[in-house]
Amino acid sequence: MNVRDVGEFPFIDRIAKDTIYTPSSVRTAIGDDGAVYIPVAQMDQVVTVDTMVEGIHFNLHWMSPKDVGFRLMTANVSDIAAMGAKPTQAVISVAASGSVEVEVLEEIYKGMKACARAYGVNIIGGDTVATEGPLVLTVTVIGEVPAEKAVLRSGAKEGDFVGVTGILGLSAVGMQTLSQGVEGYESAKEVFLRPLPKVRLGTILREEGAHSLNDISDGLASEANEIAKASGKALYIVEKDIPLCEDLVRWGKIQSVHPTQYAYTGGEDFELLFTISKERWASLEARLELEGLAGAITCIGRVEAGEGKAYVERDGKKVELPAKGYQHFHPLEE
Amino acid sequence: MNVRDVGEFPFIDRIAKDTIYTPSSVRTAIGDDGAVYIPVAQMDQVVTVDTMVEGIHFNLHWMSPKDVGFRLMTANVSDIAAMGAKPTQAVISVAASGSVEVEVLEEIYKGMKACARAYGVNIIGGDTVATEGPLVLTVTVIGEVPAEKAVLRSGAKEGDFVGVTGILGLSAVGMQTLSQGVEGYESAKEVFLRPLPKVRLGTILREEGAHSLNDISDGLASEANEIAKASGKALYIVEKDIPLCEDLVRWGKIQSVHPTQYAYTGGEDFELLFTISKERWASLEARLELEGLAGAITCIGRVEAGEGKAYVERDGKKVELPAKGYQHFHPLEE
Repeated sequence: MNVRDVGEFPFIDRIAKDTIYTPSSVRTAIGDDGAVYIPVAQMDQVVTVDTMVEGIHFNLHWMSPKDVGFRLMTANVSDIAAMGAKPTQAVISVAASGSVEVEVLEEIYKGMKACARAYGVNIIGGDTVATEGPLVLTVTVIGEVPAEKAVLRSGAKEGDFVGVTGILGLSAVGMQTLSQGVEGYESAKEVFLRPLPKVRLGTILREEGAHSLNDISDGLASEANEIAKASGKALYIVEKDIPLCEDLVRWGKIQSVHPTQYAYTGGEDFELLFTISKERWASLEARLELEGLAGAITCIGRVEAGEGKAYVERDGKKVELPAKGYQHFHPLEE
Repeated sequence: MNVRDVGEFPFIDRIAKDTIYTPSSVRTAIGDDGAVYIPVAQMDQVVTVDTMVEGIHFNLHWMSPKDVGFRLMTANVSDIAAMGAKPTQAVISVAASGSVEVEVLEEIYKGMKACARAYGVNIIGGDTVATEGPLVLTVTVIGEVPAEKAVLRSGAKEGDFVGVTGILGLSAVGMQTLSQGVEGYESAKEVFLRPLPKVRLGTILREEGAHSLNDISDGLASEANEIAKASGKALYIVEKDIPLCEDLVRWGKIQSVHPTQYAYTGGEDFELLFTISKERWASLEARLELEGLAGAITCIGRVEAGEGKAYVERDGKKVELPAKGYQHFHPLEE
């Protein structure tokens, strides 16, 4: 059955069930003019919004609707993690043409709910409207961080180590292999379809004194330039230290592309890029080991005096790293 | 110049200026992974989201882009007012095709900013993405209300008076006369193009003890049924008490439609519908007079025991008032 046949209000009734995973912070959820929540005392509130459009950011031909929903919630929760904050509440807006199958929208909601539930994020409100165009999904997530403690991208200091969590570029490999119908590459496909936002790591990085923090939604090149620019420093990436894995190396060979290219420009890994003082690096590693997260971070460079640009050390030479991350009006595929 | 030529980040730079109107509550605005704001202690946070789609909710042929922006911000701020809360922060998402003129988007932002500025709402973040479909604009507004004091639609009590602010139905008359190129009807057109959210009235209604409150975005019929249903009561509207004005009566005659029809089904007036005890009605009126708002409210009915439906008293007879408000998958025009 499609959305036009069901109508707006009955559709909302269908998707508004089972959306509260941390009830103690909610006074009024879906069903009034606005949702009402209770912030924790002395916590700053962090807000982020992310929109995905059918045909641009997702494609229902080779992704399930549930994956689409999961990824969109991850993109938002990841932005909250990238401030060192904890996500708490979400509102969702859907613009769908009347011919969209209700079951497809319900599956998208299931994906968003699966991610929200995993991170204790309540879905407290939304809007559902008609469009004659492609499906447009917008999620706003709110999070909390102790007052004045949000980790900005502007705090990188000379002498900082540059670190990343996880492996970068897998999401791009996952997208390419999925869209081309290539067998294998299961770990890359998993990262593309069900990326996990690094909320716990973001909190640890904040608590251990990270000076700057970004999530990697637009590729390492773009994010490194953002931190460099916002901080007014030079970020040096040592290319040989960028962590790789088998899927990256194998797909790079087939495509005649250096595997680090996927890290630089792939984007949507939702890993974290951060800088922290040399002195705190060791205690950060010790803390991660204590929490069962040994190996979660890799040092890939350093912060030096400079004028807001990122550089790569490659084969003993320093070259500028242009911010050719994934920009939404110039998609990767072009 | 169109959006594709300008690119995402330069476009954001162009619209991210002059967006903070209450700086004391903002720690980090546009330019990081998330925006950070400082909630006032002991205040619940209220969240609302509203999406408008080109061709469905607005039409650039007979509305200026600035009006489109203003109305969208009003729709959200009005939802906050309808909880008895004060709007504080906003985030904006825009999905635009690459061929959209940047000047058009800038005008839409100007309209949103004009409304936000008037109500002290900071625009602290957003997302800008590409689409191949119509323009889709999503605004999320956050507001504040003293803990546990938000006025819900579920609180109507037997014996309450039913009140409305302003005149209902003018927005519909404004839209029809504008879209048909009819001269005159300036007050109706003004209400349609530049509706003002009733923030001050919402706060006064809360402070004076209103039991239930909705803003009139979908027409009186729909909103009355929502309060009746959420409260498990019967809402009786006395049709002859619905406030009218010359534009409504004149256009109704031309269209052979009873002028109250616009109030019932027109929607988007962004006036308030509320219930309050008989005893508090007089003190509410006195308070409004004190604040220079005499005549801002009209009593149009009463709350009785019942099973969650709205009724109209017309020519001495009670008839059920169906919730035929503007539903987004069944537009008014059909």
